[in-house]
Amino acid sequence: MSERLVVIGGDAAGMAAASQARRLNPGLDIVALERGTRTSYSACGIPYLVAGDVASPDELVARTPDEFRREHRIDVRMEHEATAIDLDARTVAVRAIPHDRTFRLGFDQLMIGTGAHPIRPDLPGIDQPWVRGVQTLDDGCGLLAEARRSNCKDVVVVGAGYIGLEMAEAFHRWGARVTLIEGNERPMARTLDPDMADRLTGLVRGLGIEARFGEQVEGFEPGRVLTPSGPVRADLVVLGLGVEPSSSLAEEAGLLLGRRGSIRVDRRQATSAEGVWAAGDCAETYHLVSQRRIHIALGTVANKTARVAGVNIGGGYATFPGVVGTAVTKVCSTEVGRTGLSSAEAARAGFVTAEVVIETTTRAGYFPGAEPMAVKAIAEKGTGRLLGMQIVGGAGAAKRVDTAAVAITAGMTVQDVVELDLAYAPPFSSVWDPVQVAARAAVREV
Amino acid sequence: MSERLVVIGGDAAGMAAASQARRLNPGLDIVALERGTRTSYSACGIPYLVAGDVASPDELVARTPDEFRREHRIDVRMEHEATAIDLDARTVAVRAIPHDRTFRLGFDQLMIGTGAHPIRPDLPGIDQPWVRGVQTLDDGCGLLAEARRSNCKDVVVVGAGYIGLEMAEAFHRWGARVTLIEGNERPMARTLDPDMADRLTGLVRGLGIEARFGEQVEGFEPGRVLTPSGPVRADLVVLGLGVEPSSSLAEEAGLLLGRRGSIRVDRRQATSAEGVWAAGDCAETYHLVSQRRIHIALGTVANKTARVAGVNIGGGYATFPGVVGTAVTKVCSTEVGRTGLSSAEAARAGFVTAEVVIETTTRAGYFPGAEPMAVKAIAEKGTGRLLGMQIVGGAGAAKRVDTAAVAITAGMTVQDVVELDLAYAPPFSSVWDPVQVAARAAVREV
Repeated sequence: MSERLVVIGGDAAGMAAASQARRLNPGLDIVALERGTRTSYSACGIPYLVAGDVASPDELVARTPDEFRREHRIDVRMEHEATAIDLDARTVAVRAIPHDRTFRLGFDQLMIGTGAHPIRPDLPGIDQPWVRGVQTLDDGCGLLAEARRSNCKDVVVVGAGYIGLEMAEAFHRWGARVTLIEGNERPMARTLDPDMADRLTGLVRGLGIEARFGEQVEGFEPGRVLTPSGPVRADLVVLGLGVEPSSSLAEEAGLLLGRRGSIRVDRRQATSAEGVWAAGDCAETYHLVSQRRIHIALGTVANKTARVAGVNIGGGYATFPGVVGTAVTKVCSTEVGRTGLSSAEAARAGFVTAEVVIETTTRAGYFPGAEPMAVKAIAEKGTGRLLGMQIVGGAGAAKRVDTAAVAITAGMTVQDVVELDLAYAPPFSSVWDPVQVAARAAVREV
Repeated sequence: MSERLVVIGGDAAGMAAASQARRLNPGLDIVALERGTRTSYSACGIPYLVAGDVASPDELVARTPDEFRREHRIDVRMEHEATAIDLDARTVAVRAIPHDRTFRLGFDQLMIGTGAHPIRPDLPGIDQPWVRGVQTLDDGCGLLAEARRSNCKDVVVVGAGYIGLEMAEAFHRWGARVTLIEGNERPMARTLDPDMADRLTGLVRGLGIEARFGEQVEGFEPGRVLTPSGPVRADLVVLGLGVEPSSSLAEEAGLLLGRRGSIRVDRRQATSAEGVWAAGDCAETYHLVSQRRIHIALGTVANKTARVAGVNIGGGYATFPGVVGTAVTKVCSTEVGRTGLSSAEAARAGFVTAEVVIETTTRAGYFPGAEPMAVKAIAEKGTGRLLGMQIVGGAGAAKRVDTAAVAITAGMTVQDVVELDLAYAPPFSSVWDPVQVAARAAVREV
């Protein structure tokens, strides 16, 4: 009998690992269990589905179950939920949801790609069906169906992180009256430093939504959300309070957990049990700058860690070095990017920093369409090592954090960044790229 | 008497060095000689001035002579041409053009920022006044004035490198019938490998201009350009055959020259004579990947090398490590970027390479406005070290060469690039950034 890999979770991480393992080991017997109805989709595309930029959920699906079956010979079982892992017997207990049938599936290797789920704070009414999180594509479709069914007029989005902002903008464009409620004094408070986040406050208000910062949600009642300053009308509530790893299956099986309950893995994505792997939003990862373990739920990390897991499962050797904390989003036409450590994160990691914020333009100042952009650089005092960068600005601004992400990965100083040979022509940039303008300012402060 | 710095050339390099020296040494006596009528402008903006994107040449001027006089206490002398350098006497012979007066100016330190000038091949009629190159802003203004004066209908652009393409598009948009004549079989043959350059051929033809590739110019006669396949009507001819360093003054003074006649400098931008510095388009530089001296005339390099010269002139210490060959341009709405070594350059530098070209999109494939883009990665066989990257694609494509430029500077392998934490959200990128998609393909080939 050939070796069997069982994969729990048919989204990006599970299926990327399965496909990669298949490539290296054509003889492997691969069974993938997905409790939902779709495989391998772009969860990050859900806000754009709601906003109408993307016409159908099918467009967000990178590969269908049939494609996996046909092209990769992966036995994909949809609406099959893994309910328990027995590490001694090396079996997974499975429930076939449509038939409510349960059975056990033996494995030689196990790949856990159970992802993450939206945080639901313990508030009265939080479990009402119209209080929804957005994580899976099925969630997204359900949300949109609920909005259409109830012909909802008032949507409350709780949390002004990037998912909250994207969903608020999406429902505004969908045609609802949107109220955004955020406990912090400013949007994106976990992503940006206060001085950069403050640049978004006016923008968020300008979206055409009502934004309430520094406001706590106290509970949910039919048709309204309760806050200290009175109830807010709500036909539908979207939770944008972040996610937590879906690791209960792993925990109950006795696997070691790490930060925020994510599954602890080594650099090959191996869990604490022999032949059991984890990757994606359910797994812990490592921050190359803080040199600390962290939990980070992003599609890029999911794809990369899954590829590493798949290579190792397939008999190869691969390691994942870690992340530097890069992320990007858009609020209306304003782009937001960040990489490395924020000011607060740098302090927590023990760095003493020099920090600068510069104002410049996305193109040569005289070129049509040049828009303002601000760049913050955070460097280590003394050594001048670049630790982090944050960008808020017009079209073409935010993706420049990639330059800083590579420089941070390479351990470059701000002086090194000044010397980089970056691309320039007037439609693209000033002659000193904005990243270098910030680096030059930082050189004088470190 | 205070120490005197004489600067020859009032464009980017000369004035950036002068300003930097002033910052470090407030007591320095600085005299800057500029034979033209403008200081410190963006020569790269000239095509956009012709096309009408930029309304006035003044917009391209970063700082006027008066600003340099007032804010930096630099004695800027416009329409003053340096005609000779006497290294023994430490004087510069100067001609005040308007008065045709000549005099000698003593210096303690000398900064040479004489720039470059368009290549004029030795062809019959090349010195006709309507055969023009584009290097200085005065050239650009003269060209536009000539076009307006003659109400020119037919413009011939010779050379389909980036300046030729930008000028051809600019004159087409200005309203002229444009013929582009290029000796090579494809556009941008010195910038891109043939497989990537071929992607531009159809685009160039689609600009609305007549493009003749593989055609030699044999001479210029009033109203026409001569070619083996017959004359081409031309009220105005624009030369886009590249530039050569303006180093005759330095050569006559006995300074050591290097590649293509550029002024040899060390890493501090010091020439072969004590206290004499050079930077910008007239100076030689160093390629970090080929590890060879090269001549490269780009605004980015001019600004960086001038800053280094200025620090050293001002009594500080700075070095310029070199370039990796990054450049970017636009042909209509298609962006072109490159960094590192091309295939031919890598071969000349002795590398054995693995090369891949991948096709992808500028945004997530399902996202509105996603446009095709192609990425070529060139890596060293065996080590997997990234040597070069070329990009041709829609909006947002080309500036991604910066990611590769930093990775190349840091000596990263294509595997390292696969592991980078680059920014992703559907409006910006696919989940694996196009640069990483190319790197993944290259990993399999090295």
